[in-house]
Amino acid sequence: MKPLNSLIATALLVGAPLVHAQQVISLNITEEEVLSSQRQWEKGLVEISTAYDAKGHAAAKAVAEKVIDSTYDYSYGPVLFKPTLTSAPQTFRTDREGALSYFVGGNPKYPNDTGFALKGWRNVDIQNIAIYLFGKTAVSMGKVHFTDKNGKITSVDKSWGFRKDDDGTIRMVMHHSSLEVPPPAPAKGK
Amino acid sequence: MKPLNSLIATALLVGAPLVHAQQVISLNITEEEVLSSQRQWEKGLVEISTAYDAKGHAAAKAVAEKVIDSTYDYSYGPVLFKPTLTSAPQTFRTDREGALSYFVGGNPKYPNDTGFALKGWRNVDIQNIAIYLFGKTAVSMGKVHFTDKNGKITSVDKSWGFRKDDDGTIRMVMHHSSLEVPPPAPAKGK
Amino acid sequence: MKPLNSLIATALLVGAPLVHAQQVISLNITEEEVLSSQRQWEKGLVEISTAYDAKGHAAAKAVAEKVIDSTYDYSYGPVLFKPTLTSAPQTFRTDREGALSYFVGGNPKYPNDTGFALKGWRNVDIQNIAIYLFGKTAVSMGKVHFTDKNGKITSVDKSWGFRKDDDGTIRMVMHHSSLEVPPPAPAKGK
Amino acid sequence: MKPLNSLIATALLVGAPLVHAQQVISLNITEEEVLSSQRQWEKGLVEISTAYDAKGHAAAKAVAEKVIDSTYDYSYGPVLFKPTLTSAPQTFRTDREGALSYFVGGNPKYPNDTGFALKGWRNVDIQNIAIYLFGKTAVSMGKVHFTDKNGKITSVDKSWGFRKDDDGTIRMVMHHSSLEVPPPAPAKGK
Repeated sequence: MKPLNSLIATALLVGAPLVHAQQVISLNITEEEVLSSQRQWEKGLVEISTAYDAKGHAAAKAVAEKVIDSTYDYSYGPVLFKPTLTSAPQTFRTDREGALSYFVGGNPKYPNDTGFALKGWRNVDIQNIAIYLFGKTAVSMGKVHFTDKNGKITSVDKSWGFRKDDDGTIRMVMHHSSLEVPPPAPAKGK
Repeated sequence: MKPLNSLIATALLVGAPLVHAQQVISLNITEEEVLSSQRQWEKGLVEISTAYDAKGHAAAKAVAEKVIDSTYDYSYGPVLFKPTLTSAPQTFRTDREGALSYFVGGNPKYPNDTGFALKGWRNVDIQNIAIYLFGKTAVSMGKVHFTDKNGKITSVDKSWGFRKDDDGTIRMVMHHSSLEVPPPAPAKGK
Repeated sequence: MKPLNSLIATALLVGAPLVHAQQVISLNITEEEVLSSQRQWEKGLVEISTAYDAKGHAAAKAVAEKVIDSTYDYSYGPVLFKPTLTSAPQTFRTDREGALSYFVGGNPKYPNDTGFALKGWRNVDIQNIAIYLFGKTAVSMGKVHFTDKNGKITSVDKSWGFRKDDDGTIRMVMHHSSLEVPPPAPAKGK
Repeated sequence: MKPLNSLIATALLVGAPLVHAQQVISLNITEEEVLSSQRQWEKGLVEISTAYDAKGHAAAKAVAEKVIDSTYDYSYGPVLFKPTLTSAPQTFRTDREGALSYFVGGNPKYPNDTGFALKGWRNVDIQNIAIYLFGKTAVSMGKVHFTDKNGKITSVDKSWGFRKDDDGTIRMVMHHSSLEVPPPAPAKGK
């Protein structure tokens, strides 16, 4: 117990510092955790591409499985994944097999998948327009710029939903990607 | 206090019913609330279109403002809104003015906006592939089919993030929409 | 795709049923989950007491460890546990060892602990006054009545905080218990 | 768009700084917000006591109403409030009237309430043992030391549940208080 005088003295102070708890445990997700998870996804895409170019399809597929398991939440439940280039009736890839096929192709169940992660990507740059933090989850939206080995840049619009699990790992539960819409052609005669 | 005998009798019952609390207050969002919010959005789009056809642009704009204020969360903060047809550098419509311009056009700041909600929509049908419920928030993904007054159907892929406010109202904090990607053309010779 | 006529017909229906998503995944805690966790705690206390009376201290301690591990969240982090009868400077039992000592005693580090769960309890009855559900967590408050083997009832006031983990298990992260305060003696001369 | 060379250069950097989003909106409660709410409660108790001593009961009651409305969540719903000294059947004060009666007395519906906040408090000192942060809510536990105008200190054990509302204000949805339990008397002969 503090001596009385010091207690009363404390009460008279203006702007006295807050007394922190001995232990503070936050279950909430932070901006830094979201950004780290995004950076892990950026690196993962480049790793799959470089593995494919250096070692072939089997190596790329092995890397892709690792990337999917560490950045997507398929081990927890369905992931709301709408990849950039998929078409109906295989638009949504809510299970791991569908996601893997999208990234590296080679699955006869998904004949239109040619392997988005095999396109020679050498840099991926996520530019968030905004992030919302909701308890253990977050949503982000922004542009993502993919640069291939020839320097060609492809830009897409992406929204992500993230979930922090009990171990503190951040994984994507939602991922909606779409090609940028080109601006309309100027009207004739203008 | 219950008499002792009844207490002991209770203890011996297998599968005795749970004793509910006198008051249970849930701050969590429910599937029904998400679906009601989506239905409100469906109806809102049709209302804007029919107001435009019946009463002209000013009437449609007034309806659109009501629809935006009741279904989007702009009064709370930025909304992560990537409409179906917007292009860089005006892709994202994080403020109310940008959303209104997308729906009804007529804003010189957004010269490419022609008014998505003015396209004669007579029915909007949201088909969710899955919904996640996280505390007071939710995310959904699925197809949305728009039928115009000529019976033509346009299908888009949509993800939404919802937030339940202190009054129990559900509004969208995130909305990513993109045109369906057509399936690749079959290879020649096949 | 639904045929157009049925789409338009649907739009005209008042009170048409909501279309449910193919998958709905809720991470939120429910009243039933809170009540089941409380029931598990009720049974656990009785099991420790009956094990002690039938088989002695070692058996009771083994049961208590099982009860603590299944109903408290010590494997995740500190638990905010203020047991009914503890005194300063050992009031709070934020670690598992302190909780176990409170329930079954026998730990020289906690010389005042005599084993609350060894007091011959034959029935425990939780009467919640209210429960709040907040995402994956909940708080409850109410009376708890303990009946011993002689039919004597002890009533305490309890608040609990619950957390649902990634596996869907509910455990207590907070537990504040205090003996009922007796009503004041009537004033003399009344 | 960044020039290509700078993009590739970025990719080669180890430990490059994270690119922050243009806007980050957190709905989560923070430790600082919890501590500020506690400090507001500390000051409120002292204000009620000093208003009572300087200006009488009506003034104290007016201050108490202000303190309750700014620190408890009664305008939102029932508050799980178990004050230090209440007895059955009026143990729990889930509505504002019951809380006000506890703090300042004078309500014939609660004949045992003598006004806890009228006891001459000159300092209140909250010492948290730990705080959990869960989304927009938090729970804390610890000791609270009340010093009266004669320098006498009364210590109680308290748990609190906090909720952050849409405006960012933190209020208590749960408050369980109990007098410290005195240590057991030493056994005779020791």
